Amino acid sequence: MKEKTILIVGLGLIGGSIAKALSAFTPHHVLGMDRNPEVLDQALACGAIERIGYAEDLPSIDILWLCLYPNDAVEFVRKYGAHVSPDCIVTDACGIKNAVCPQMVALSKTLHFHFVGGHPMAGKERNGFDVSEATLFRQASYLLVPCEAPQWAADTMAELAKQIGFAQVVWTTPEHHDEMIAYTSQLPHALACAYVLSPRCPMHKGYSAGSYRDVSRVARINETLWTELFLENREALSNEIGTLIENLTHIQSALDKQDTQKLNALLKQGREVKESLGE
Amino acid sequence: MKEKTILIVGLGLIGGSIAKALSAFTPHHVLGMDRNPEVLDQALACGAIERIGYAEDLPSIDILWLCLYPNDAVEFVRKYGAHVSPDCIVTDACGIKNAVCPQMVALSKTLHFHFVGGHPMAGKERNGFDVSEATLFRQASYLLVPCEAPQWAADTMAELAKQIGFAQVVWTTPEHHDEMIAYTSQLPHALACAYVLSPRCPMHKGYSAGSYRDVSRVARINETLWTELFLENREALSNEIGTLIENLTHIQSALDKQDTQKLNALLKQGREVKESLGE
Repeated sequence: MKEKTILIVGLGLIGGSIAKALSAFTPHHVLGMDRNPEVLDQALACGAIERIGYAEDLPSIDILWLCLYPNDAVEFVRKYGAHVSPDCIVTDACGIKNAVCPQMVALSKTLHFHFVGGHPMAGKERNGFDVSEATLFRQASYLLVPCEAPQWAADTMAELAKQIGFAQVVWTTPEHHDEMIAYTSQLPHALACAYVLSPRCPMHKGYSAGSYRDVSRVARINETLWTELFLENREALSNEIGTLIENLTHIQSALDKQDTQKLNALLKQGREVKESLGE
Repeated sequence: MKEKTILIVGLGLIGGSIAKALSAFTPHHVLGMDRNPEVLDQALACGAIERIGYAEDLPSIDILWLCLYPNDAVEFVRKYGAHVSPDCIVTDACGIKNAVCPQMVALSKTLHFHFVGGHPMAGKERNGFDVSEATLFRQASYLLVPCEAPQWAADTMAELAKQIGFAQVVWTTPEHHDEMIAYTSQLPHALACAYVLSPRCPMHKGYSAGSYRDVSRVARINETLWTELFLENREALSNEIGTLIENLTHIQSALDKQDTQKLNALLKQGREVKESLGE
């Protein structure tokens, strides 16, 4: 791949990690934008970005990588999208796709650029540039949502994802993405919050081990971001919560009825699913 | 502490690990019993036990450590408890206490021994002597349920727990133990099974990361053991499942109503609980 000039907007955990990985592992030129000047200073100081990006840079960049909350990402493109070149790839890092991709595709047609959706499946329980890392994406999946972009643009993003360390690139649609993410990521986050709201939680110390730790881990949530992500995918998530409540109710009802056989069958079914996946 | 002769009954993951830890880190004499002769051969070969224990050994042992399923532990004592000396400490490793301790206390009075309940808060997703380890208890809690035992007997078990590597010993009652365990351990296991029963689970690969892995981990359950543990603590567990369903329903209802403020408040509450615990 030829050297690209890449402008990253939003140097939080994800944007910061992408910037650091691009600078550490690729020959591309990395520009950064952030509303917080201290973060820009830090990013410059540690070499995560070559220089600060400005609106004037938009016509000459090859890739505009939006690492913002979903609504902010769309807003940014609405405001500045007209300034990028018609060959520019605009991409995002949002955890939901139905609420972002169709709007971006529509904007790409009126403002003239190529939109390729992306979702780096990586995170931490803390946010911000401070905790970003060049190696955040090791062993992670990059979900690529090409929408209506030309093949070369999607291929470029797939190659870049590999260059910055992703273990695999999964090509998908906004619809399938959001359904899967509701289950694999949003539900565990909702669950972690619901779990720690038990009156027993504040007394858990001394009585807990790995299973408490694992279920509760992601309750340390950024509620502003996740409220937006949840609401933008509310149908799929509500559906997953409903399925989980149903399955929990089956277990509860077997318990209440002291139905040994039914309870054993439900737990066995759980074990068999995990085993069939080789986990 | 003087050298003790300790008979461990049941050399599975927990009994095997206790045997290995006692042999590796203490001067005590470790005898083992198991219904599987191959396991006994293995335990002898690797030095986890000094020798095989027989019914004839019961009068001369200082500690009888039952590492069996709850009903089997009580059955063992009913059958052989009359043979131990009146100074013998009988202890268990069961994950529930209300269903075990009162029966053991009653037996201790008619058959003459001291009963001290115990619950080593450690485990793995696999079972059996093969995966037992001398270091299994590092960083773990030992829940000590002295019931009506004399202080010296409870102190002996607390000291032994420290000797085999437990990071802390928490003294508690059967009632409080079972309430806390329903929340910290049983609920996450029920939850993991309920979670993997979603129709989305078999398709998760490529779309999942740490939060899927953590919630689903313990679905690889020993359903025979956990059915017994769940049923013996059904009231507390059913209560915890109910609380969780209620909290999940609040999140689901805020989603369905698109109530941003309410959803944000629920997630924030979750985060604050975790933060207040310093996690």
